[in-house]
Amino acid sequence: MEYHELLGVGPEEAPDVLEHFERATYEGREYRHLPDTRHSIERGTVLIEGTAVRGFPKIMRTLVLDPGVRRFFDAPFVAEEKLNGYNVRVARIDDDLLAFTRSGYICPFTTRTVPERVELDPFFDAHPELMLCGEMIGPESPYTDHDYPTVDSLEFRVFDVRHRESGDPLLVDRRRRLCEAYDLPQATSFGVFDPETAAAELRTIVDELDAGDREGVVMKSLDGRHQLKYTTAAANQGSLAYAFAVPFDYGPDFLFPRIMREAFQSVEFGESEAETRERAHALGEAILLPAVDAIREVQRDGETGEEHTVRGPPEAIDALFDHLDRMNLRTTVRRDETVDGERVVTFLKHSAATTDSVKSYLDGQTFRT
Amino acid sequence: MEYHELLGVGPEEAPDVLEHFERATYEGREYRHLPDTRHSIERGTVLIEGTAVRGFPKIMRTLVLDPGVRRFFDAPFVAEEKLNGYNVRVARIDDDLLAFTRSGYICPFTTRTVPERVELDPFFDAHPELMLCGEMIGPESPYTDHDYPTVDSLEFRVFDVRHRESGDPLLVDRRRRLCEAYDLPQATSFGVFDPETAAAELRTIVDELDAGDREGVVMKSLDGRHQLKYTTAAANQGSLAYAFAVPFDYGPDFLFPRIMREAFQSVEFGESEAETRERAHALGEAILLPAVDAIREVQRDGETGEEHTVRGPPEAIDALFDHLDRMNLRTTVRRDETVDGERVVTFLKHSAATTDSVKSYLDGQTFRT
Repeated sequence: MEYHELLGVGPEEAPDVLEHFERATYEGREYRHLPDTRHSIERGTVLIEGTAVRGFPKIMRTLVLDPGVRRFFDAPFVAEEKLNGYNVRVARIDDDLLAFTRSGYICPFTTRTVPERVELDPFFDAHPELMLCGEMIGPESPYTDHDYPTVDSLEFRVFDVRHRESGDPLLVDRRRRLCEAYDLPQATSFGVFDPETAAAELRTIVDELDAGDREGVVMKSLDGRHQLKYTTAAANQGSLAYAFAVPFDYGPDFLFPRIMREAFQSVEFGESEAETRERAHALGEAILLPAVDAIREVQRDGETGEEHTVRGPPEAIDALFDHLDRMNLRTTVRRDETVDGERVVTFLKHSAATTDSVKSYLDGQTFRT
Repeated sequence: MEYHELLGVGPEEAPDVLEHFERATYEGREYRHLPDTRHSIERGTVLIEGTAVRGFPKIMRTLVLDPGVRRFFDAPFVAEEKLNGYNVRVARIDDDLLAFTRSGYICPFTTRTVPERVELDPFFDAHPELMLCGEMIGPESPYTDHDYPTVDSLEFRVFDVRHRESGDPLLVDRRRRLCEAYDLPQATSFGVFDPETAAAELRTIVDELDAGDREGVVMKSLDGRHQLKYTTAAANQGSLAYAFAVPFDYGPDFLFPRIMREAFQSVEFGESEAETRERAHALGEAILLPAVDAIREVQRDGETGEEHTVRGPPEAIDALFDHLDRMNLRTTVRRDETVDGERVVTFLKHSAATTDSVKSYLDGQTFRT
């Protein structure tokens, strides 16, 4: 089967679609991936060894639980925890387990880490045509670093199982039972909800998640095809703090949507003036404090970036740094230890845009505005 | 003289330049104005009755007083108060005094208001080739509404005098003496500064302006040709509060630059952790509280916008509403009184983008993100 057929694209459209795929290699193996959604094909879709690995679809968002949820669902749905880490798809291609990032790169570190922590072969022996979609969570991560109380390093949580080539999801219930049968760790399920009465129950769940500094919920139709997300204040503010640690890299894009999520949440939750003011203070801190720290860091050290710690077999760590290198990310190792045969490396991922902009503004560069 | 010659444009480039000018009319008189800077011709430049009225140039900004100021100026310079109102140029064209907005529209309200409050004829009798560049400040304004302690309604303050056709400024000293001679109210001058020692002195001035909820300073080379601005926290936060009262209209563009001004100011001013936190709280309030109010207003009233109050002769008020109408701005009069022969009208300028977006999100509209 040709690639365009796998993607459900007619032969006349094929060249136009395929030209958007970018070439990359992983350990001598060439593959192609789609960096942005095109022609209804999800961002992150991969073409490799004559097969396709569909990208994980963007999830719809609502700014209000009521009436957002009942407008979106016309039948009972499941709510699961939305996790704060990085999105990864694991598939078996020609006997190799490979982990793909959201945008479709094969991440050598994740590829080596997931099978170390979870036994995946029994699942893929029985279901080679499926892929596991999940989140890598925990503090020892090369891309994110949100803490979860039970996660010491980095763990995998499945939140979806899909047919690799078509991208079609399994029924939610079947997916959860399958993961249980193969002992695959899953995102928490909060159960099944009726759209007409869900908002109040979800509100309670969101409040609890918020109190635990957790991200939010993803609601899914029972067939897994329709997904809706809603996030906590902790997540909105946390991601602003994350973005404003390197403000000129991520700041502008992150800013406005998260502020409006906070504003709508404050109104829907019926906050008092004092509560709204408290939220405003937390929001202001999430934005300004990391930005001030970043400027001070550039002033003091001449550079800034994101600090990450990773743990794994020496070979996985080397592969990670090779990968970051190939992605043109400059890194500086700050600590490098060996603990129980694993390497534990703390490194700075340099933020070129923030370092350069802050330097030049501190240097008195003027601009028209 | 042809228009392109007035603009310093060669005949071969003329069509390309002139096509960017848009046509408008004012009381049956046709004119053209440039809505965006093109080919080095300032935004707001006007072609009318065979003459040109140059746009007011964008002023450069620095995010740090030190070394921003000494990098920008290599000789003594003047600092004047930057006022928070709306920018207007007044010129005499064929015996008529006309007031042009920043983008080059003739504002019928300002055109009628300025000569009522300031006697301009003696100045223009002697200097018909000049234009007065100034700020309209005060609470009774159709476009802004910042309060100044000594301004009850709306007043004009000159901050620049330029040759109308060339846009060349007068020497600062000559301009100030000229305004004094003709009794034209001016922006406050803080005097002449030496670039090497100015930062500390300016810091004191900025602190005082900030405490008085005033906008900032504009520094100018003595020949008036080079201008640099720096704004107070009060101004940064105030304009965020202004923007987030109608967040989907102005929010995104206003946001990031002002946050970064705050961050650089906090670092340069050497703020303690408690002071930075206090600034963060004020910043958070400036952003979130008006946004929450806007959502509540749409929820309650089905619409939101900016409320303004204007005062003037009945004919000037009518002309203003005709003008706003022609600009496709929808307004609703909330109060309309006559006081001492003048009309005092409070009206809502509808914010279509904010009203529509808030309505649909409150209604549970979902979106991909």
